[in-house]
Amino acid sequence: MIAAPTSRPTAAALAALSLVLAAAPALALDGKWTPGQVLELDAKWLRKEGLRVPPAALWDAKRGTGLLSGAVNIGGCSGAFVSGTGLIVTNHHCLFGVVQEHSAPGRDLITDGYLARTPADELPGSTLRVEIPKRFTDVTTRVLAAVPAGADPQARLRAIEAAQKAIAAECRKQADTKCKVATFDDGVQYTLIESTELRDVRLVYSPARAIGEYGGEIDNWSWPRHTGDFAIARAYVGADGRPADRAEGNRPYTPEFFFPISTDGLDEGDFVMVLGYPGVTYRALIAEEMRERRERYFARRDDLFGEWIRLLEKTTEQDEAGRILVAANLKGLNNRWKNAQGQIAGLDRGRIVQRQRERDDAVAAFAAAHPEHADALAARETLRAVLAERERTWERDFLLNLIPMGTDSVAGGIPPLPKALYFAATLGHDARERAKPDGERGNGFADADRARLRDRLRSEQHSYFEPADRAVFAALVRRALALPADQRIAAVDARFAGKTPEQIDAAIAALYAGTSLLDPDRRDAMLGTSEAALAARHDALIDFGLDWNRDLRALRERERDWNARAAQARPAWRRAVAAQAGRPIAPDANGTLRISFGHVQGYAPRDGLVATPFTTLAGVLQKDTGQEPFALPAAVRAAASAPGAADRRVNFLADGDTSGGNSGSPVVDGRGRLVGVNFDRVWENVAGDFGFDPAVSRNISVDIRYLLWMLRDVEHADGLLRELGAGKD
Amino acid sequence: MIAAPTSRPTAAALAALSLVLAAAPALALDGKWTPGQVLELDAKWLRKEGLRVPPAALWDAKRGTGLLSGAVNIGGCSGAFVSGTGLIVTNHHCLFGVVQEHSAPGRDLITDGYLARTPADELPGSTLRVEIPKRFTDVTTRVLAAVPAGADPQARLRAIEAAQKAIAAECRKQADTKCKVATFDDGVQYTLIESTELRDVRLVYSPARAIGEYGGEIDNWSWPRHTGDFAIARAYVGADGRPADRAEGNRPYTPEFFFPISTDGLDEGDFVMVLGYPGVTYRALIAEEMRERRERYFARRDDLFGEWIRLLEKTTEQDEAGRILVAANLKGLNNRWKNAQGQIAGLDRGRIVQRQRERDDAVAAFAAAHPEHADALAARETLRAVLAERERTWERDFLLNLIPMGTDSVAGGIPPLPKALYFAATLGHDARERAKPDGERGNGFADADRARLRDRLRSEQHSYFEPADRAVFAALVRRALALPADQRIAAVDARFAGKTPEQIDAAIAALYAGTSLLDPDRRDAMLGTSEAALAARHDALIDFGLDWNRDLRALRERERDWNARAAQARPAWRRAVAAQAGRPIAPDANGTLRISFGHVQGYAPRDGLVATPFTTLAGVLQKDTGQEPFALPAAVRAAASAPGAADRRVNFLADGDTSGGNSGSPVVDGRGRLVGVNFDRVWENVAGDFGFDPAVSRNISVDIRYLLWMLRDVEHADGLLRELGAGKD
Repeated sequence: MIAAPTSRPTAAALAALSLVLAAAPALALDGKWTPGQVLELDAKWLRKEGLRVPPAALWDAKRGTGLLSGAVNIGGCSGAFVSGTGLIVTNHHCLFGVVQEHSAPGRDLITDGYLARTPADELPGSTLRVEIPKRFTDVTTRVLAAVPAGADPQARLRAIEAAQKAIAAECRKQADTKCKVATFDDGVQYTLIESTELRDVRLVYSPARAIGEYGGEIDNWSWPRHTGDFAIARAYVGADGRPADRAEGNRPYTPEFFFPISTDGLDEGDFVMVLGYPGVTYRALIAEEMRERRERYFARRDDLFGEWIRLLEKTTEQDEAGRILVAANLKGLNNRWKNAQGQIAGLDRGRIVQRQRERDDAVAAFAAAHPEHADALAARETLRAVLAERERTWERDFLLNLIPMGTDSVAGGIPPLPKALYFAATLGHDARERAKPDGERGNGFADADRARLRDRLRSEQHSYFEPADRAVFAALVRRALALPADQRIAAVDARFAGKTPEQIDAAIAALYAGTSLLDPDRRDAMLGTSEAALAARHDALIDFGLDWNRDLRALRERERDWNARAAQARPAWRRAVAAQAGRPIAPDANGTLRISFGHVQGYAPRDGLVATPFTTLAGVLQKDTGQEPFALPAAVRAAASAPGAADRRVNFLADGDTSGGNSGSPVVDGRGRLVGVNFDRVWENVAGDFGFDPAVSRNISVDIRYLLWMLRDVEHADGLLRELGAGKD
Repeated sequence: MIAAPTSRPTAAALAALSLVLAAAPALALDGKWTPGQVLELDAKWLRKEGLRVPPAALWDAKRGTGLLSGAVNIGGCSGAFVSGTGLIVTNHHCLFGVVQEHSAPGRDLITDGYLARTPADELPGSTLRVEIPKRFTDVTTRVLAAVPAGADPQARLRAIEAAQKAIAAECRKQADTKCKVATFDDGVQYTLIESTELRDVRLVYSPARAIGEYGGEIDNWSWPRHTGDFAIARAYVGADGRPADRAEGNRPYTPEFFFPISTDGLDEGDFVMVLGYPGVTYRALIAEEMRERRERYFARRDDLFGEWIRLLEKTTEQDEAGRILVAANLKGLNNRWKNAQGQIAGLDRGRIVQRQRERDDAVAAFAAAHPEHADALAARETLRAVLAERERTWERDFLLNLIPMGTDSVAGGIPPLPKALYFAATLGHDARERAKPDGERGNGFADADRARLRDRLRSEQHSYFEPADRAVFAALVRRALALPADQRIAAVDARFAGKTPEQIDAAIAALYAGTSLLDPDRRDAMLGTSEAALAARHDALIDFGLDWNRDLRALRERERDWNARAAQARPAWRRAVAAQAGRPIAPDANGTLRISFGHVQGYAPRDGLVATPFTTLAGVLQKDTGQEPFALPAAVRAAASAPGAADRRVNFLADGDTSGGNSGSPVVDGRGRLVGVNFDRVWENVAGDFGFDPAVSRNISVDIRYLLWMLRDVEHADGLLRELGAGKD
């Protein structure tokens, strides 16, 4: 297929490329595989693709070691141990919260970046945690055995959840062990996941924002990319080597495994693996459910986030302190906003809903022809019926779900806004959950979660800026008042129905002025008190939170019913899907540890254009306009302009199958050596959450040598480089 | 250099491509060659590059025939005869004026496009002319022989111009012959150019604007491109076969040569030639002159055109008729605005000024070492001194030069705005020129030019919309009032100094209300009257025009001096440049017929991205959003969605060396068959006017088969296709 060399090599190469891009077969590398699945894959095929260690070296299930044990969850992102002294490499944007926490007018670490030249200089992240994977156990049989015969969907789900809790609780009896039973594809499998959580995590290095976010929102989700989206943290344990809260005498954690860094560099076609904690994906949905995502969910997020971004920008235009306060939230909103638009464009371009429909129909035909899968047909009908019910109150429920409770995150990871309502509703939720026995409380409200809940509220307070918060509050009220007659939110109607915009603003101002909830210490003191005690405070904002929470809890009841019915139906459907496929299928991402296999390669984003897989310092310099988001710091410009520097690699493309939580994921070569840090996907691949398209499925990583170059030639961080085992060029 | 085929062809091809793009040597194909130079080029080398006809077949100087004779000048654009029945293919945007002339509310040919199904339906272009090249004669010796010994620069230039006029006047004694003596590189060479001008030219086909401008300003100057920028006209002659004004009995012109159309299609690397009338380029400038373009000229145009565009858009926001009236001007302004920005970016990125300085210094060193070129050093100093003088009143002179006189075009082809001032100043200029003997008048004001001048004024009236015109007038006055104290425009100061913005607007409104100049018939009647007669009308706008013209004439005097000195100096400098190069050098483009040689090929616009050289109907469909400028007409969408249509080619890239006037240029293969119509350059190549960069010098053409497909599958224009000899697919 490659044209023979001729006297016109450029043309020949381009022609060859065109042919190749058109004819390249879909490589069956897609899938975010669980540690347990790694050994099910064909070892010969993996070797042929480029894996140079035995599959068992990826994950030793018995001992809980292997490459995957070096891939940690760090504050909702992924990260990699890279030294025996607890150093973790992740993304700049994953440690942004810590940088922000230590910034203030006059000490702008966001802009300047930060390098701790001694351990004493490292900056603690008050809410930052690291989870290290230890053990994965299939407990499906045990979980399902707990379901009484003839149980209705709700009873069935209760039994399953109780079993999950019981198994996790039993597991927690082990010292220093964090346990959860994760659900895969609505119940095709249940896995007990044991991990070690470290609570003392400190910032070692964050580049200047102009490096870590070079290209900003303009380049976000796109290629060519020239972003130094890397940062380094260090995990600490107590003097006894066990997880501990931050303390003077703590010492660096020594991981079981850490990734050696490769400075060999990559060639096109090189095999790479991406390890990490991809967030929720939706490939197991049926076509109708994907349509709901396209036509309702992403369409509404596109609209809403655009509005909130404008409000945050407008209310902080004249206020430097305000801008610092809302910076992280604004970044999160912008990211999710662009994501929603990319999902819409990708779903449309890839005809993903229509194609899913065709696949669904093929599975249905298969099920009809195979009596052992007859239940799949009924399951599909159940999923459709549940969706139809959901859609009846969709608009109201969307608004209610914008306010997460406690340590929950809204699906898709938007920041809790308005924070006043988040605080108030969470307090109401806490009071109501508190009334239950500890073991029966909702996620995040057990006694053991108390410190984490308090930290989370305090962490959100770091991003609180009253004018912005009130503006978002008013926008939310306006939307609630505009809901159809059969989809009202009582908490809003009771307070705002019939008011003019000015009256609404005044009422909201009064809520903020009259509350004690926005004082962190007083709020902490209210945590764990009863509903009656809260009501007795006669704090109108808290009352609103209690009412809002009542509406939300009613929704949660209905969601529980929908989820219970879907959870009963989907496994039968998915078993038919797997049987029809006749090969291993990776479950949808659910925030648990996964590995994906791929190769370094470019792609054709559009007719007439090819994205080549590497970018260089030359490109960084080319983009430098001196204006945000392309304002290269002078020291970097000088170092990048040095002779020979221009060809140094900055970012690269591969077809690793990634999703949101893969931010900061180690990208390793066939020998397991760290070659890059994943930080984004290309725009055309955003809808990859719904279906893998080999033509456009590309993840974007920082070449690890860009980090090393920055540490050496710009930061002169010789000590850190020695720790990374990469002192020399 | 091509990597061996491996099991990962995509990666290998991309790798090969990267290598090749980095290492590709600069092919010495650059240059817009004159017909006379074609036979000076190495015929073997041309054959090796892909020319399949003898160089003499390009242009037979004796008989005035050959491929080049089929390349015509049509309304400032280029075009190609494509049938024995006078059909000419050019760009949609080149015939846009005719389409606009026949449009009105209710008959929107701009939006709908137009196809004449019979000759009787063809639409005459009132001011459209076609010039067919006939003969090129080097008259340098004769021109220079007219310079008296010891003449100062002004006297020298007067003698040269008189000789040019005399030679042209003598030439015009031939029947039906248009003659001019063109100056190359400020006087390195003078060439008598004889052509046949046809005055009856009619529109046969223009696609809908949504096709002809698909992508609009978003895609303009960029790649990937999917624009159907084509249109067809027909030239007519009188019943006697000679050029004639439009009349009933006229018949289609039979050209000496027309281009056969090739439907074979192109491959990457294929040899192509671009024939046409490139506008002014600046590669012969010295570095300091290029700096003036970068830092003053383009910077100021960027600023000014941006303002005017906003004014035209704002004043027509609520007025459909107004929008139609200003459409062509707005298009022109947008085009030049984006051009200015591209020139700035390209000059900076290519370090063109710095590189020119290095080349200049090399030439100076060469001249210093070769006594026969000693005059080059003094010449360079003269060019520098003249520039320094120009810069002293640069800001005022820039404003004065915005208003062209008569049929002059402003350098760079912006539309005359405000038109009221253009009409008034032109009338004043006409009266003053009219006072001279016919042979001594400035360009375009001879008796023979009278009809053309009248037509031009009427043609501009087609784009006149009073609110827009007044807004631009006010903006121009504001800029003039802000000039430094030593750079005033007396005409403006006398009327507007000390006035508030509101008073300025009121004064301008009064000028427009009180003039008879905006009535075409009354204006026509004033053409050719004396300055005294104009003054006696007591028409304040005409008075302003007379005053403005006085300031401009004073500038013209100074410019004349500068030009005379530069014209005396530059040839010596350019002779040293040529001697130092030791090979043929194409002179700067000057609107005369040129040919450029190239190959179909892509390029790397940015680090991490490769532009591949072809786009397809699939890409047209991908861009279709239903919203301007990507709103594909339903009939085109349907035809493009037919089975097998997606792969049809739409646009292609080559490294033809083109410039502005190359719009509509025939692109022909090595056998002289028409394969495309040139319509744009890529953004990175806009600054190619100052220097050829083989890495980014790419012209953009419509694949001729896209036009044929449109005529066949969308327009069902079978008769026209038969005339084009391309009835079948």
